Amino acid sequence: MQTYDLRPIGRVESPLIDPAEAPKQGDEGAPSAWLVFEPEMQEGLSDLQVGDHVIVITWLHRARRDVLRTYPRDAHDAPWIGVFSLRSPDRPNPIGLHPVEVLDISGPRIRVSNLEAVDGTPIVDVKPVMGPIENR
Amino acid sequence: MQTYDLRPIGRVESPLIDPAEAPKQGDEGAPSAWLVFEPEMQEGLSDLQVGDHVIVITWLHRARRDVLRTYPRDAHDAPWIGVFSLRSPDRPNPIGLHPVEVLDISGPRIRVSNLEAVDGTPIVDVKPVMGPIENR
Repeated sequence: MQTYDLRPIGRVESPLIDPAEAPKQGDEGAPSAWLVFEPEMQEGLSDLQVGDHVIVITWLHRARRDVLRTYPRDAHDAPWIGVFSLRSPDRPNPIGLHPVEVLDISGPRIRVSNLEAVDGTPIVDVKPVMGPIENR
Repeated sequence: MQTYDLRPIGRVESPLIDPAEAPKQGDEGAPSAWLVFEPEMQEGLSDLQVGDHVIVITWLHRARRDVLRTYPRDAHDAPWIGVFSLRSPDRPNPIGLHPVEVLDISGPRIRVSNLEAVDGTPIVDVKPVMGPIENR
């Protein structure tokens, strides 16, 4: 099957260095972090505002891609579960979804809340969180 | 910057053929569709159940990747908006996020509700919708 070329648009700059010590999800105590975008992405970022709720999409570059079953949430004695029923980073395409709030904007650097991705994680997309149909 | 190789794990089988006629979002009248996974992905799918709410992640292979600003929701006379503030498929990495419910499972074929992706769209990941912290 044809493959596709994912080109990072920026990187996470975070105090989180070690994936083993990162919270499992952003709302479980993850720190604020900077999203540092490539300068040529600036035009696409121009309508983001402080207070926006967005989904940051990352490529979890330190994950394993050859895993189809694993144990949930580090419960090493639990039954193994298919990765498509888990949020584990280990999966065939290790895409991360991170709902965050925009805290600060400084040119191509955007500070966001509660991001559990480690320092250096490639960013591949940013999308607004969708509200009710009538507000779209 | 290093790029990454996205390898589809399956494809959408849908009555929607023409992107121009597809609803903008799944909850705006999109039909049910089958997710047809590669046979080797079966192990990762084994814990999905009818009634599960999942996020299907696709690669919107017919989108344009060279667009950084566009008009929102086909309002061709509206001001152009940066793509990272829009859900438009046209963006540097055309990743689609589709919240759906599992309706039927038949081996590596999984039927889901309200999918606005057109027939043939590559699937790259499936993740469970996260509930409250205490249920994880």
